[in-house]
Amino acid sequence: MKTVNIGLLGLGNIGTGTYKTLEMNREQITASSGIDLRITRILEKDTERERDITVSPDQFTQNPDDIFKDPSIQIVIELLGGIEPATSFMLEAMRNGKSVVTANKAAVAANYHALTETAAKNHVQFRFEASVGGGIPILNALTTVLQANRFEEILGILNGTTNYILTQMTENGLAYGDVLKVAQEKGFAEADPTADVEGYDVANKLTILMALAFNHYVAPADIPTKGITDITLDQIKEADSRGNKIKLIASAKIEDGRLIYSVKPVELPKTHPLAGVSNEFNAIFVRGNAVDELMFYGKGAGPLPTGSAVMGDVLEIAKSLDTRKE
Amino acid sequence: MKTVNIGLLGLGNIGTGTYKTLEMNREQITASSGIDLRITRILEKDTERERDITVSPDQFTQNPDDIFKDPSIQIVIELLGGIEPATSFMLEAMRNGKSVVTANKAAVAANYHALTETAAKNHVQFRFEASVGGGIPILNALTTVLQANRFEEILGILNGTTNYILTQMTENGLAYGDVLKVAQEKGFAEADPTADVEGYDVANKLTILMALAFNHYVAPADIPTKGITDITLDQIKEADSRGNKIKLIASAKIEDGRLIYSVKPVELPKTHPLAGVSNEFNAIFVRGNAVDELMFYGKGAGPLPTGSAVMGDVLEIAKSLDTRKE
Repeated sequence: MKTVNIGLLGLGNIGTGTYKTLEMNREQITASSGIDLRITRILEKDTERERDITVSPDQFTQNPDDIFKDPSIQIVIELLGGIEPATSFMLEAMRNGKSVVTANKAAVAANYHALTETAAKNHVQFRFEASVGGGIPILNALTTVLQANRFEEILGILNGTTNYILTQMTENGLAYGDVLKVAQEKGFAEADPTADVEGYDVANKLTILMALAFNHYVAPADIPTKGITDITLDQIKEADSRGNKIKLIASAKIEDGRLIYSVKPVELPKTHPLAGVSNEFNAIFVRGNAVDELMFYGKGAGPLPTGSAVMGDVLEIAKSLDTRKE
Repeated sequence: MKTVNIGLLGLGNIGTGTYKTLEMNREQITASSGIDLRITRILEKDTERERDITVSPDQFTQNPDDIFKDPSIQIVIELLGGIEPATSFMLEAMRNGKSVVTANKAAVAANYHALTETAAKNHVQFRFEASVGGGIPILNALTTVLQANRFEEILGILNGTTNYILTQMTENGLAYGDVLKVAQEKGFAEADPTADVEGYDVANKLTILMALAFNHYVAPADIPTKGITDITLDQIKEADSRGNKIKLIASAKIEDGRLIYSVKPVELPKTHPLAGVSNEFNAIFVRGNAVDELMFYGKGAGPLPTGSAVMGDVLEIAKSLDTRKE
């Protein structure tokens, strides 16, 4: 039995979901991997908050160096969100020889090269499956099982908040503002919904998908991006009369040898596999020149689905650490 | 640049699709992996058949030992199909220190323990992504990104022939025998369709899914299995009047702590994600205790989709061979 110690940056909703995923499935994880995963230190200011997990007070620290300079910690999980200080913390962890796992699409999209190159330079791993599609295993699929393809097209419904709003407008004839209010009350939308409804969150995810599938980095700000704030019930009804549904679509495809990309509301025929993806669900449609059409569907957010992807990445790293030591 | 030499057992439809996947994407595969993959020997009697690929006569051999005993070959791809001699050949390759990739669900399902244990004993890898769902990256997802879940349920449409027949009966009101004949003419169904229409092919795939997701081996013959040969148009119409569709479903779920499994025609509500999976497409629905509901959808058969999964496995092995030598 090998023990792998983990430092966790951030114990908010996603951090708590990740901790809980490990706690509730510890027995099976240990049995199947032969690895005892221990989250030994947690960087988090709010040590008093009621959480549905077992954390002892001495796991908490306010000093990130307690994690970066601890030689017993091999993996750092970054779940602070936002570009900084998350990026600086991840780089610092890598420079101290720690592999890094994150769910932070904003930081990965903004600093993709710095993060991947610093990981390579320091011979550590950097994994970010949870940053796109939450629990949906899309990034690993693109880089492992599907790696023998040339990809021709990727289309994604990559934001649960906007898909929930568009679904409710379409199915229940509710106005944009009214649905947004309900979504905020239900916790599907944030108090400041700008990043979601203007498409910026989706642009971050498209940057990451394009970097992996097309080996082509486009900064989120350079992706033509339009959100759903202008979508009216009339437009939705008109689309419906044409047999279509309006979805906020991240799109990247090869046309005449060039990569064309955008984030914008698109009318999809109701027969398209993505048209049936409702409410908070996400889905990613991929076409590769060998595999043809694939679709992945699941929960693109939420503490446990995101925690599932984070812990999957942690275990992949832990297994390889194990192998190297044998 | 590292060179990895491969021996290929079988150059039928799937073997040719695998060879073609490598040939048509060689440039990108080499650029992204830094590995030069070479299929140096091919075990195949039919050397004269017209194939849409470039094979030189001296690649062919009739003697499997030309592959097993060749120290320059590191990976063996088995695409003969059928339980024997495929299983004996895979075991012999492993005993000679070669990692093995296969798409052969019958052999993997029948000899799961012998194959995985022989691989472990000989410190080689054994991968079989293409054996379930063709190009759909389900097995790797279960064992990597989703490995921190306890799985609660897996439902699959895992056979394109039967899904095509049921779809045509449902949508066009055609009788079973008539659709089967068309499917045979189009090449979707084999001359002897028994393994498909009686559910045996699906049972093999369910054995493999259960071994990976539930760490529980059930021989295909021990899975209660019913095919679609008795399904009448009247039954399909009655299901339709109840808002349901009949699909051939492989099912494994935990009920009261026990694993319950079957292969049989099931009435699914039309709103179920699997109900919309038509014709030759396959799909797998998974519920895990952290990730919640996921669905994977794509082409479950065919030379190129299957070749995509085989070459993905080959590259994963080749990358790890690379690392070990550094």
